Amino acid sequence: MASPGPAHLRLREYLHQTRLLASISSALYVDQNTVMPPAGAPWRGDQLALLARQVHQRQSSEAYADLLAAAQAELDAGSAPEALHNLRLLRLELKRQQALDPDLVAAIALAQSGGNALWQEARRLNDFASFAPGLELLIQLRRQQANQLACAEEMARSPWEILAQPYEPEISKARLAALFAPLKVRIPELLARLAAAPGARPNPGTPGTDPLPLEGPNPSARNQRARNELAQSLGPQNRTPLLPEALQDSLCDELLNSWGYDANRCQRSRSAHPFSCTLGPDDFRITTRMVAGQPFSAFLATAHEWGHSLYEQGLPRRGDHYFPWPLGEATSMGVHESQSLFWECRVARGEAFARRWYPRFRSGMVADPWGDAHRFWRALNPLTPGLIRVEADELSYCLHIVLRYELELALIEGDLPVADLPHEWNRRMQKLLGLVPPSDSEGCLQDIHWAEGLFGYFPSYALGHLISAQLAETLERQLGPIEQRVAERDEASLRAWLAAHVWPLGRSVTGEALVQAVSGEELSAAPFLRYLEDKLERLQATPSSRS
Amino acid sequence: MASPGPAHLRLREYLHQTRLLASISSALYVDQNTVMPPAGAPWRGDQLALLARQVHQRQSSEAYADLLAAAQAELDAGSAPEALHNLRLLRLELKRQQALDPDLVAAIALAQSGGNALWQEARRLNDFASFAPGLELLIQLRRQQANQLACAEEMARSPWEILAQPYEPEISKARLAALFAPLKVRIPELLARLAAAPGARPNPGTPGTDPLPLEGPNPSARNQRARNELAQSLGPQNRTPLLPEALQDSLCDELLNSWGYDANRCQRSRSAHPFSCTLGPDDFRITTRMVAGQPFSAFLATAHEWGHSLYEQGLPRRGDHYFPWPLGEATSMGVHESQSLFWECRVARGEAFARRWYPRFRSGMVADPWGDAHRFWRALNPLTPGLIRVEADELSYCLHIVLRYELELALIEGDLPVADLPHEWNRRMQKLLGLVPPSDSEGCLQDIHWAEGLFGYFPSYALGHLISAQLAETLERQLGPIEQRVAERDEASLRAWLAAHVWPLGRSVTGEALVQAVSGEELSAAPFLRYLEDKLERLQATPSSRS
Repeated sequence: MASPGPAHLRLREYLHQTRLLASISSALYVDQNTVMPPAGAPWRGDQLALLARQVHQRQSSEAYADLLAAAQAELDAGSAPEALHNLRLLRLELKRQQALDPDLVAAIALAQSGGNALWQEARRLNDFASFAPGLELLIQLRRQQANQLACAEEMARSPWEILAQPYEPEISKARLAALFAPLKVRIPELLARLAAAPGARPNPGTPGTDPLPLEGPNPSARNQRARNELAQSLGPQNRTPLLPEALQDSLCDELLNSWGYDANRCQRSRSAHPFSCTLGPDDFRITTRMVAGQPFSAFLATAHEWGHSLYEQGLPRRGDHYFPWPLGEATSMGVHESQSLFWECRVARGEAFARRWYPRFRSGMVADPWGDAHRFWRALNPLTPGLIRVEADELSYCLHIVLRYELELALIEGDLPVADLPHEWNRRMQKLLGLVPPSDSEGCLQDIHWAEGLFGYFPSYALGHLISAQLAETLERQLGPIEQRVAERDEASLRAWLAAHVWPLGRSVTGEALVQAVSGEELSAAPFLRYLEDKLERLQATPSSRS
Repeated sequence: MASPGPAHLRLREYLHQTRLLASISSALYVDQNTVMPPAGAPWRGDQLALLARQVHQRQSSEAYADLLAAAQAELDAGSAPEALHNLRLLRLELKRQQALDPDLVAAIALAQSGGNALWQEARRLNDFASFAPGLELLIQLRRQQANQLACAEEMARSPWEILAQPYEPEISKARLAALFAPLKVRIPELLARLAAAPGARPNPGTPGTDPLPLEGPNPSARNQRARNELAQSLGPQNRTPLLPEALQDSLCDELLNSWGYDANRCQRSRSAHPFSCTLGPDDFRITTRMVAGQPFSAFLATAHEWGHSLYEQGLPRRGDHYFPWPLGEATSMGVHESQSLFWECRVARGEAFARRWYPRFRSGMVADPWGDAHRFWRALNPLTPGLIRVEADELSYCLHIVLRYELELALIEGDLPVADLPHEWNRRMQKLLGLVPPSDSEGCLQDIHWAEGLFGYFPSYALGHLISAQLAETLERQLGPIEQRVAERDEASLRAWLAAHVWPLGRSVTGEALVQAVSGEELSAAPFLRYLEDKLERLQATPSSRS
């Protein structure tokens, strides 16, 4: 392989500086969501807008375009295919950035930061109306963005598809329809089978069990207050979970330490919404939260976010065609999510893992609320449709995504007014899961994504479930059952397999190509549905035969 | 007053953008010192260097110089004196920034961040040698900086004086010598009086009471390990303080809440070294730490850092000549420190305050380690010379500053080699306070300042003691004794007095002019020495006459 020419070296340095700037935004974002006092939001918004402008300027300038062209001119038949691939991705991104008005870029950054702040408060107070103008603005700006980007696309794409490209390159509504169709048929069947099973747990959506049944649009002041309190209990300030907070915190630490957490490079904080964020090549942050009445929330979210972080840590960051080149990046949010779900669902919610951790959980409690390891495992896998996506069971999770996907299509491409979102959310939730949120905080205000203008992002979560299942089937063909590895305390072999087959691919393949390459088959919903059916069956088996 | 002209409006917007950029550095700094994992340091250093380059570029560009000149040309006889003053300060700063080589600016930012990281580790491991190259580099770069800045100074200044200007405008070595001379005479006399008093507490520096007596330059491995452990106990990980950490934490919260802490605009975190930092016009951070064996450390540091923050919160940030203009800034670090010391020493270490808080401290303990309120007050005011500046009693504190001031003069302007610093530190510490640090972590590695290249900063701490005493005498002439106000739970009147007489002056006066304007007299050491003698006398009075 020829050594890189002078233009390539200059380009590399240019990209390094761009990455530095962009990662400053990430650092400010992490601070904003973990530590910053609320009144800091407007100034933070100005800071982020300033950085967004700078990053956009760097990514769209004539000087940068010239540098890309000069680097391209250096390539010849002897050049590494990675160099060609990097330049192709960079040219596509340049074209997109050049299509954007710098003022729009800054306005979106400002609106994202403002939307985040509005949302924090609106969710806390269960006050959708105070959030609506911010959401309205974000929708309008993102539609403008899609419009400006349309001319840069290599093929005809709808506005929603254009907005989804940064998260899920090459995704289309048609492909999503094909992938989601089996889910929309089969999951309701499985839910019905579950509800009909002897000893089925009551559906909290049925009358009498919902602690705060929904009334008309004008609930009494008392109920409104009760809803606000319930909404507030979603935040980290509620101190009455089943598991003491200090124990939850300690369990999260123990979990991470057993999965290769290196305090020299990683940091776990708390935030209202769990997330994972890479701040530099050796600086990985994850956040968790404690949720009242959800004893496993922090533990499972830690497993989940750590899965994201492991992927980031395993990306090909060294070598001349990777960091800070595009090939060193994550390929899609769907693949990203497949990694977090692997650790959350395939490992932490598995029966072998539950058997190992049950004594530790029990030892931290005055009384044992589970009784035995099998019941503890069942408690880790509640098959009860719930209101909150991030607390949802594996069976109903994808229906939460379908709900959001269809709603954001209606907001971005259809004619759904923002003001109707709460009603429409509740109506569809009732239809999909038989549940009606008693408050918007548990309904359309529960997620941070739209508050930050992230339209086009939600489907990646469902794709993550499908990809995770398909990759896990391949892994099990090669290593044997995951449950066996976990029972032998050998998660290291799972990590090693992912580190060998998935993480180092970076952006050299798309998400779908990655699945094809690793599993030998096109991505489909079949492995995920097989997995669900098997797990459902095992969870419904009588405890006595297992404990 | 004429309304601002177009060049003034453009200048204002320009300064706003510069302030935004500079405050991003502050946000990264806070993250680095509270949350960032150690391996993140090199990337963080690159980010800070990039921002330092940008800020310097903005503050030294020809376009900016033209903008300043255009704003100057808009002024006439009818212009507000504040406008003239702002422009004079901006021109001086422009001249300084133009004198600096951009590469040097970036190199200093990088070395500061690197020095911080080296210091964290060196202090933890008590390993001065690993820190020495970083310190060497910072000294060399700061000498270069002083050299480049010399031509921009309005009068002849020594290298150290030039470096001190950003912290203490118009300070000179001659003025410091005049202000410090009475301290160097009188404080040792008071220390001797104290040591000779009946019932004097043993000096921990005398043989037999020092838990780890210093050996020669090659201590045994066992002692080295013991020192490392002792050094590590300086960090927040040690869990055996007299007061449980949770209680200390809660007491800090209670203190802040009683002093007007607004969680909407403020945030308290933990860090290895307590500090206060303003991240935006409505975003104020302070940090504290828990120190093993120092039960009041976190409480008093919180009072101290909150004093800094109150000053920042009270600066004149509104109005057309203030934020983001120079007149809206703090005038000197000495004045800044006078505000933190006011709340720490005049209030939190006062007897009336101790009487009020004693029951609360006692209620959090299984057994009462103090016995009565008077003894509790005495415990808050240990008159025992110690090794650590930030834990020092009020009597010996300024000698810690004299030590550092003389050493940094020797490092920057004299011929003290970095390698000799530990030895020279210990020798002078023995001479000044009769103490020899058992480890460098408790000696020349204890402070973060030099690790970040902050030479010229330490004298501001001593100036803060003098200013605080002189302002407090004036306040008492107008409001009556502080002790009386505190006894009546009326700290609000103290805050109101400072908010009326000190904080809103911003940079409209220098530190010395502020003291002259408020107290009617030139700054001197006399009020501080009067305060010390009075407090010493009261602390030495027999408990029975007071409790």
